[in-house]
Amino acid sequence: MASPDACFCLSWRMAVEANNAQGWRTVPPQCVGHVERYMLGGQYGSDVAAVADQIAIYLGGSAAADGKDAWILDVDDTCLSNLPYYKEKHFGGEPYDSRAYVSWVLRGACPAIPQVLGVYRKLMERGFQVFLVTGRSEDVLGASTVENLAAQGFDGHHRLIMRSAAYRGYGAVPYKSTIRRQLVAEGYRIRGNVGDQWSDLLGECVGDRTFKIPNPMYFIP
Amino acid sequence: MASPDACFCLSWRMAVEANNAQGWRTVPPQCVGHVERYMLGGQYGSDVAAVADQIAIYLGGSAAADGKDAWILDVDDTCLSNLPYYKEKHFGGEPYDSRAYVSWVLRGACPAIPQVLGVYRKLMERGFQVFLVTGRSEDVLGASTVENLAAQGFDGHHRLIMRSAAYRGYGAVPYKSTIRRQLVAEGYRIRGNVGDQWSDLLGECVGDRTFKIPNPMYFIP
Repeated sequence: MASPDACFCLSWRMAVEANNAQGWRTVPPQCVGHVERYMLGGQYGSDVAAVADQIAIYLGGSAAADGKDAWILDVDDTCLSNLPYYKEKHFGGEPYDSRAYVSWVLRGACPAIPQVLGVYRKLMERGFQVFLVTGRSEDVLGASTVENLAAQGFDGHHRLIMRSAAYRGYGAVPYKSTIRRQLVAEGYRIRGNVGDQWSDLLGECVGDRTFKIPNPMYFIP
Repeated sequence: MASPDACFCLSWRMAVEANNAQGWRTVPPQCVGHVERYMLGGQYGSDVAAVADQIAIYLGGSAAADGKDAWILDVDDTCLSNLPYYKEKHFGGEPYDSRAYVSWVLRGACPAIPQVLGVYRKLMERGFQVFLVTGRSEDVLGASTVENLAAQGFDGHHRLIMRSAAYRGYGAVPYKSTIRRQLVAEGYRIRGNVGDQWSDLLGECVGDRTFKIPNPMYFIP
């Protein structure tokens, strides 16, 4: 067995990914080094690749039957990585800092998560309507998000749905549920739904399958 | 980073616990040794303890308001462990063997999972109605299950609900959803729901919070 701290931190991370640990505000202090090694040492990349593999297994040889077969992908730490930002924030060991975070996003410098970009390209090739659904504020972060996604290869998608003023103050579950309900009302069949937060994947109209991308750095209720 | 196999097996196990990997019939061959070390080397026990800790955080100082505040616990590999049986089945490296499994359960020799027994006792002390809900066949396994639970300290619960003939052939999600819906119709408020399979925790009336106990040895759809 690993050292007591490594053992505890592995268990904590597992509790996060299985949605047993909720409402946490920072990574436990004794796990900051563990999360750093996880994110930078290769295991995180392997874990994301494993999710991409499961999506590939689920897809098999299938393609969109028509223009109503849809997938939903979250943006932050699903398509685009905030890891360069969190490196400066002790990998989640510091509480959320909205001003610094907005400055970071406005730079439009988030790199693609390559395994998810692979999933995205496959979905596009197969003719699925891909919706990128994000809690980012449309007013403040719209332009930088559009630019960042395009620069990182997330182009040609059906629709980018950002948080409009009407949804300000909504929690992620009711906001994203409302968006998905609208898509279903438009006749879309949500074949899959990918996010790094359980709040992307719970609520209404979650889709035929959901896929949780690992993220031990922060929790969005 | 760990060896390529260890890295892959950690990712596979994470994919199982986050419900990304579904419908698998055996542990991947290259991960049988990994799962053995996980189950016997201390990390599994630490992971179960982390879930129990999260339940304790969720409970806080709360107690049942009246006789309708309920919790649901699954039996196999939630309250009672089948690890002694799976030791003989390559820790899930062999496909499910219903005849051997029934023989094992008829012995009534499953040990309690101590961290879950601790949760159980706390829930009983706090006055919650605890329902043990299992897919085990009532006709075949009823007597041995009742005896095994009592011998391992799971006594005094409100009701043990086993699969009656009426539910033969039901999948776990519709079977357990139907049971939970009936409990809600009786006026129970399901405050929490604990199981080692996602099929214990998805569907209808899942409860205010669900808790996933780790299990990398088998998958029940």
